[in-house]
Formats: sequence, C-alpha cells, structure tokens
Amino acid sequence: MTTPPTPVSPETLQQALGELFAPWVQALHLRVERSDADGVTLRLPQSDQLSRVGGVLCGQAMMAAADTAMVLALINHFGQFRPCSTVQLSSSFMKPLSGQDALVTARVLRAGKAMAFGEIDLAGADDGKSVFRASTTYALM
Amino acid sequence: MTTPPTPVSPETLQQALGELFAPWVQALHLRVERSDADGVTLRLPQSDQLSRVGGVLCGQAMMAAADTAMVLALINHFGQFRPCSTVQLSSSFMKPLSGQDALVTARVLRAGKAMAFGEIDLAGADDGKSVFRASTTYALM
Amino acid sequence: MTTPPTPVSPETLQQALGELFAPWVQALHLRVERSDADGVTLRLPQSDQLSRVGGVLCGQAMMAAADTAMVLALINHFGQFRPCSTVQLSSSFMKPLSGQDALVTARVLRAGKAMAFGEIDLAGADDGKSVFRASTTYALM
Amino acid sequence: MTTPPTPVSPETLQQALGELFAPWVQALHLRVERSDADGVTLRLPQSDQLSRVGGVLCGQAMMAAADTAMVLALINHFGQFRPCSTVQLSSSFMKPLSGQDALVTARVLRAGKAMAFGEIDLAGADDGKSVFRASTTYALM
Repeated sequence: MTTPPTPVSPETLQQALGELFAPWVQALHLRVERSDADGVTLRLPQSDQLSRVGGVLCGQAMMAAADTAMVLALINHFGQFRPCSTVQLSSSFMKPLSGQDALVTARVLRAGKAMAFGEIDLAGADDGKSVFRASTTYALM
Repeated sequence: MTTPPTPVSPETLQQALGELFAPWVQALHLRVERSDADGVTLRLPQSDQLSRVGGVLCGQAMMAAADTAMVLALINHFGQFRPCSTVQLSSSFMKPLSGQDALVTARVLRAGKAMAFGEIDLAGADDGKSVFRASTTYALM
Repeated sequence: MTTPPTPVSPETLQQALGELFAPWVQALHLRVERSDADGVTLRLPQSDQLSRVGGVLCGQAMMAAADTAMVLALINHFGQFRPCSTVQLSSSFMKPLSGQDALVTARVLRAGKAMAFGEIDLAGADDGKSVFRASTTYALM
Repeated sequence: MTTPPTPVSPETLQQALGELFAPWVQALHLRVERSDADGVTLRLPQSDQLSRVGGVLCGQAMMAAADTAMVLALINHFGQFRPCSTVQLSSSFMKPLSGQDALVTARVLRAGKAMAFGEIDLAGADDGKSVFRASTTYALM
C-alpha cells in the first residue's frame, strides 16, 4: 500500500492549464474551481466565441473541455504531472446548454501502471443539469 | 427509391463552415478540400495555436475537426443543410501527428429518418498515415 | 410536470428478462437484485460458461449484461416497456474480474422524447470493485 | 523494418476460436470465413438462440462477435497469439438484421508496442448491407 499522493491545489492546476495545453485550448478560458480526492472541477465561461447558431455551447468545446479536465484530474490523482496521452474518448451529448457557464467535473475511475480510466460530466453552472458525459482512456508513460 | 440529391460543391461547404460554427471552431481554419459521393475531406492546417508541448497537434483539435467534418458530410449527403445534433462521438487516438497539415475525411455510413451514422479519419497530409479515427451518431430533426 | 411513473418491481423486471431477450442472452442467468428510482441492479452469477482461459469473466458477457441491464432500467424508468433500440454502447474494460459474481447497475441519465442516455457499472459482488463501465444511447419509438 | 509475419490460416484461427474463448462465446458458432493481410472475416450463423422478439439478431451477439473477431484479427496480424486485453469497444447499431447470417470483418488499424486499434463491420451475408460498426482498443502484454 503506497501513501496517497498529496492533493494538488487549484492554483497549481490552473498553472498547468497555462503551460501544458495548446493556445487554442487555452482560448476556452477554463478556470479551476475545485480539486479534491474525488476529482477536479473546471468552469467553462459562457462566451459568444464558443456558441454556434442559436446561442448554444458548441459540442466541440464540450469535448475539448472534457479532455482537458481529465488531464488535470490525472495530475491531481498522481500528485504531479505524469506524461500521458489520450487513447480514447467517448462523448454523449444529452441536451443543449445555453445562457450559462458550464461546470466540467473529471474523475479518475482507475489508474493502473499503464492505463488510466476516467469519466467527465458537464453541467449547467446555474441549473446544475447534466448535459454531456464522456468516458476516457489514457496511456501512462 | 428517391433521386439522390445533387452533390454540394466545396465552395458551398466552405461557406457553411463560416456560417454554422462557433468562432472558436472557425479558428481551426479548416478548408474544404474535396466533396463527392463518398464524403467530405477537410484540411486542418498545421499551426502553433493547435500544438501542445512537443509540437504535436492537440487531441482537442482532432475531435473538433472530426465533428465539424461530419456536419459538412451530412450537408453533402442530403444536398442541403438539415438541422441535426451530435448525439455521440467516439474518438480513438492512434498516434501523434506533428510537422504537417492534417486531412480530415468524413463519411456518412447510414442516414435514416431520425438518425445518421458516420466515420471520420484524420491522417497526415504529407505522409498519409492515419492517426485518429472517430465514429459518430447524429439525431436528424 | 408529469407524475413520475410507478416504480417497477424486481419480479416484473425478472419476468421481462425472460420474455424480451434472446435465449443466448438468457443463458447469462441474470437475476434482478434491485430496482428503485436510481436504477436497476442485476446479478451476473459466476460461471465456467462465461469464463475464458485463466478463469476471468469474458468481456463479451460484460457488454451483453450492460445492454440488457439498461433495457430493464428504461422499463423501470418509464414504468412500463417502451419499444426502444440500442443506438450506441461504449464499453471500458478497467480490470479483470474472477472468482465472484458481478453486480451490474444501470442508470438512466436522461430520457427525452426520442432518445435516452444511460450508464452502466459492473463491479465484483464480493469486493465491490468496479471493473467495467459502459455508456449507452437508445432510440425510443 | 521487420519482416511481416506469416499470415495465419483460417483453420488455425478456427482452432483458436475453440480454445481461447468462453463456452458461452463459442455458442455463437462463429466460423472463420477468410483471413488475409487486410483482416479476418467470420460468419455468424442465423439462429433462434440469438434472436430477440421479432426475429432480429440481438445486439449483444453483435458486440460479442465483434470483440471475438478482433482478437482473431490480432492473431492474424502478429502471425501468432499474443496476450492482449480489450480496453475499449465502442459499438454503433445502425439498423436491425434478420433472416440471414452475418459477416463480421475485423481489421487492425494500428498495432504499436503497447496498444492496438481496430475496426469491425457487421453486415448481412445475403444483402451485404452494413448494420453495425465497432471500434476497439486493445492493450498488448
């Protein structure tokens, strides 16, 4: 039994957000809201830049936020950055979101030696309703 | 048996790209390369904006390009824009891509009355090697 | 706001198991353990018939149990059988399971007019450890 | 550049079918039709055992056949059995199949040192129409 790693502060994760990701991903303006033993929650601010016709949050931004949140959840899980790459990401779009920020919560379900599995939920920040789910697989290096 | 719809020109699809999608998606600078009975191919130009540490194309851009390409492939398939929404998108990241543009090819596998299914391949524009695959489900309205 | 449907008893769901599914699926010998507002839990009994080399539960049985459990969760959700068909099912195999029954819990995340979304967890009945997850999309008719 | 492995004969793959899989999977009565550099094709014979109400092939059998076919395609790809485990399998059910056998074709898209990716198509043996697709990820050991 190994000692569980020290949790990673939201500030450290916010810094990782600014260093590890492509500028285009940073243009989502994700903010780390919370990190604890359960996972990591990011806020995706409402923006015309991310809205398609009709004012709804585009699905492309949901998937991008999900993948990004899971990388941070893995850092949080391991107590530090570990090189990893996304192997698979399955997204379900349950309903549209408009007129509010989104909260993106990523949870590590299992992290073994070579692979990690996780789940992401995206919900309206105001009404709390879940609109998007993703499940992911990462290869750990 | 219905008459197959008139194919949609690359120019018309390029125009749809500029009208239907969020500004953040348009910042991918996708260009329609080809459209025919088989599907639609977009070029995703190499860019520092889309590259994460190490100069590789970020996975978030791959997924976004895939979803976008499939919407255009559905327009091409139906001969015109039909309101639709992504229901599910499953992505497999097979290997990294760097130092070249990507070609994103979307194909409609089946389009019924209420649902459409498709597949997307993303390959290096120079070496032709497939690096990413996605399968998608859309609800037609 | 509609009145929530009457919950469906485990006995009624067990009967549906015997009527709606192919004989080969019934050979899994799934038993309804629990049904409530949260979802449905089935027990998949350990069996040599379902074990591959090494005595581990075969992944094929996990996927089949997941799909079956979600159909029952939809019956439970609607208060009665509604014709539906599986559109998409994404499975993640997190670790092997051996030497024990499995508990398969299906939960409806969202059910709209035309589509329903759900999640399934499969865990060891003795150690409670989650070994498999699936997310599903159904078309409602 | 390594020498490509010797292709594996249908007879050898048929024998592997009888040895590697759970008895419940063998009850699908899959038969190896073809194996070549492109992949492996299995026949799933029509059977009342696999049919649900209405005489259509149950989706559980489609997923099970897909996973099984990919394991054989990996043996074919490597020229011999290599221990591997399914990590992820995403299935799309495009339309029902009834009144005929199914042909299940599995293709390895990429096989690296640690991971392999593949795609499976299931089509009617008589009408040749594709009714089901799956994409898979395997961990190689």
